[in-house]
Amino acid sequence: MSYYERHVFFCLNQRENGEAACAQQGAQAAFEHCKSRVKAEGLAGRGGVRVNKAGCLDRCAGGPVAVVYPEAVWYTFVDRHDIDEIVDSHLKQGRVVERLLLPPDVGR
Amino acid sequence: MSYYERHVFFCLNQRENGEAACAQQGAQAAFEHCKSRVKAEGLAGRGGVRVNKAGCLDRCAGGPVAVVYPEAVWYTFVDRHDIDEIVDSHLKQGRVVERLLLPPDVGR
Repeated sequence: MSYYERHVFFCLNQRENGEAACAQQGAQAAFEHCKSRVKAEGLAGRGGVRVNKAGCLDRCAGGPVAVVYPEAVWYTFVDRHDIDEIVDSHLKQGRVVERLLLPPDVGR
Repeated sequence: MSYYERHVFFCLNQRENGEAACAQQGAQAAFEHCKSRVKAEGLAGRGGVRVNKAGCLDRCAGGPVAVVYPEAVWYTFVDRHDIDEIVDSHLKQGRVVERLLLPPDVGR
């Protein structure tokens, strides 16, 4: 078994040049909300869930984005209700939230 | 198949309070070396390898650390020779570098 059952990475990349970047689209608030929900649900830590900030995941066209490993499931999200659904469905029960999946072709 | 065949996250966490943190142990240089080696080897991008910076992975006692997903293989490393071995063996050929594995009990 891996150290964390699930490891979530949020792109928090910022860009100064005007290009789209997750940080300009609410990624920081979503990351913080996810982290606090995971903690509140008692999921955090070894054998459970770890929520991390990450640099540019290079799928900016679908941003903001996050990826859940080891499943390699990619999400795009709008607000904290989306994050709640990812926590309640995927992180707690292992059920992927189909409606929030990042389409496979989305790149930078 | 996942968007990236392998996705590597380097902890680049910094702490101001004097506690051990990967950023004080060469993590930035290792990250940059890994990223440039992956690019030079033609491994970078969709269907290949992505090398990302991450916040604290919470296994600080073994730092600096990096994790390779979807395999969930955790490494600790000292210098660029260790990174070269991870690139040449694991990222190119899928062979885990046993001597650099982070022991399973190492936490914060």
